[in-house]
Amino acid sequence: MLNFELKNPTKIIFGKDQIKNLEKELPKDAKVLLLYGGGSIKQNGIYEQVKKALHGHEVVEFGGIPANPEYAVLLEALQVIKNESITFLLAVGGGSVIDGTKFLSAAALFKGDTPWDILTNGIPTTVGLPFGTVLTLPATASEMNSGAVITRAEIQEKRAMGGPGLFPVFSILDPQVVASIPQRQLANGVTDAFTHVLEQYMTYPAGGYLQDRFAESIMQTLIEIAPRIMKNPADYEAAANFMWSCTLALNGLIQKGVPGDWAVHMMGHELTALFGIDHARTLAIVAPSHYRFNFESKKEKLAQYGKRVWGLTEGTDEDIAKEAIVKTEEFFHSLDIKTALSEYTSDYKGTAEKISARFIERGWNGLGEHKSLTPAHVQEIVEMSY
Amino acid sequence: MLNFELKNPTKIIFGKDQIKNLEKELPKDAKVLLLYGGGSIKQNGIYEQVKKALHGHEVVEFGGIPANPEYAVLLEALQVIKNESITFLLAVGGGSVIDGTKFLSAAALFKGDTPWDILTNGIPTTVGLPFGTVLTLPATASEMNSGAVITRAEIQEKRAMGGPGLFPVFSILDPQVVASIPQRQLANGVTDAFTHVLEQYMTYPAGGYLQDRFAESIMQTLIEIAPRIMKNPADYEAAANFMWSCTLALNGLIQKGVPGDWAVHMMGHELTALFGIDHARTLAIVAPSHYRFNFESKKEKLAQYGKRVWGLTEGTDEDIAKEAIVKTEEFFHSLDIKTALSEYTSDYKGTAEKISARFIERGWNGLGEHKSLTPAHVQEIVEMSY
Repeated sequence: MLNFELKNPTKIIFGKDQIKNLEKELPKDAKVLLLYGGGSIKQNGIYEQVKKALHGHEVVEFGGIPANPEYAVLLEALQVIKNESITFLLAVGGGSVIDGTKFLSAAALFKGDTPWDILTNGIPTTVGLPFGTVLTLPATASEMNSGAVITRAEIQEKRAMGGPGLFPVFSILDPQVVASIPQRQLANGVTDAFTHVLEQYMTYPAGGYLQDRFAESIMQTLIEIAPRIMKNPADYEAAANFMWSCTLALNGLIQKGVPGDWAVHMMGHELTALFGIDHARTLAIVAPSHYRFNFESKKEKLAQYGKRVWGLTEGTDEDIAKEAIVKTEEFFHSLDIKTALSEYTSDYKGTAEKISARFIERGWNGLGEHKSLTPAHVQEIVEMSY
Repeated sequence: MLNFELKNPTKIIFGKDQIKNLEKELPKDAKVLLLYGGGSIKQNGIYEQVKKALHGHEVVEFGGIPANPEYAVLLEALQVIKNESITFLLAVGGGSVIDGTKFLSAAALFKGDTPWDILTNGIPTTVGLPFGTVLTLPATASEMNSGAVITRAEIQEKRAMGGPGLFPVFSILDPQVVASIPQRQLANGVTDAFTHVLEQYMTYPAGGYLQDRFAESIMQTLIEIAPRIMKNPADYEAAANFMWSCTLALNGLIQKGVPGDWAVHMMGHELTALFGIDHARTLAIVAPSHYRFNFESKKEKLAQYGKRVWGLTEGTDEDIAKEAIVKTEEFFHSLDIKTALSEYTSDYKGTAEKISARFIERGWNGLGEHKSLTPAHVQEIVEMSY
């Protein structure tokens, strides 16, 4: 097991009808900026619940944060924070709204020339403007971690940021919100969380026995509840386990003490930046090829995953490892998630070279848990994903 | 799944040679009271590592906190805190030293007549004197939770306390400390952590699928590493998983959203108070009888446990549930932990009546996850444990 530090101060308020408890989590004299996305919260009743709970506070609203939170839009919100002397941010939405809010939390107190520096120069945020979240879409775990990914469309860039100052003060998770989530987003959420676990697990045996079992637990739970929520998202028990599994998949716990890969995300982000493919779907496109390409270095964990998560018993460990990749693809397909780039765009030719060239330009050499993947390897993996 | 709140702000610093990082976790101007137990830290080198890391801070020492931290001794330490204007407490030890430190954290700022009120009146601590820990004995998870149990020998009482103000600011967990722990304490640690998981798991199916799997993960890991650490406590990989499993067993995570039992602890505490039997061993004495007595209400979870943790497949669910209790006893025996009260004392007659009478006196009616166990049931369970 590797050495690690863990501190996650976010207060989780989980369960039925918890949104009404929002009010007591806010600082008494807070001037709140309420941030949300495309307006689905106005259809599903969450907006009203939130507004009711905010009664008594001074609240300014900023809606319209898009999926893959867009830098240009966030700069507008930043101006509102400054003009209105906002003291507390409240994100009501999924990962995009929460990630956008984290950028604003950092940018509001940033002393440098331009907040884009936070993203390009990887500047960690130690103190941000305090914020809370009301989660409406389980997937990214942004509600209980300190990371964010921001998109800048004008230069087709998608970049990560973070820091210990970017944990939400609180996050309210009411699984009843799952009932109104469209099928496509449910499938994305399951796929996103499942791949988050894979990124932290599918490396090499590193003596993190408990971490491995926790990771397997999350994947087993997602496999168990996926058909139930796809069939009936109002199934509270399935929705609650879906929501909590997504949070635990990337709140930091299972990655402590073990190596991480994350190359699938690095490649996937490029597919979103280039083609606008949903984040989760880019992961499903890249992951199987990634595991096949890196089979030799990952086969022990692939076999363990095959046995413990998929219950495979037939054949050698190598057979089981290979079959485990197939099982993973089949799982994505069962969610109606396609796993080939060509199923999303006919314009895929040259993508591998393009992504590889971008990685060279950024000096991104040595991805993955062994820091051994070169841009040339990335090119091969993306080509295998066509 | 039940509604829950989760907030655990303790910073964990885990791994090899981490004690030297102690210094940077302390407030710069802190006046530190260094608290420890019987002095084993002076034999195993931990005391020296801590003292070295504290170089530059004003430090007062208070050693001699006994196993089952004793109220009378703690009152002496409380006097030191007041006389010396201590601003930060540092517990270097196992659960007893850390629990004692939590009592001191609460008592130092307590405004009532006598700090015993905190225990008898169940007064939660919202703000305590800040403290950190260096863990020397994995078992209780006190290093990452906000609860404590204090003993008062003069009246043979053992009482629980807690509150959101009693999380350690930081805890340093270096698995290398396991190498110098005596066999008896290692066996106690495994048994204690294993039973902590059982208390939060062995109830009834409550739709906490992920929580169940996490609980099973901890038990599976403990079963896997127990023979390794008993054979060679210097086996770092086993020690690290032992240590982290003990912390996760009772840091609050697996109990969120599911019912808890804790009757085994309530009865076990009495056996420690009456006979001085090690805490962990009292749990091993009571747990099997408790599960047999409450078999009807617990048999679904017992069967799930039998299948998933012990890999039992033969017979009906009821057969598997029964066999799972036997497996649990055998596991304790494999650690050289005896599971009958008469193996610890010849003076056991009348114990059941005595404990039952104490519960009546305290008005403790309705223990367990269904709040249905009466003092009469407690009497039967303790009798079955003879």
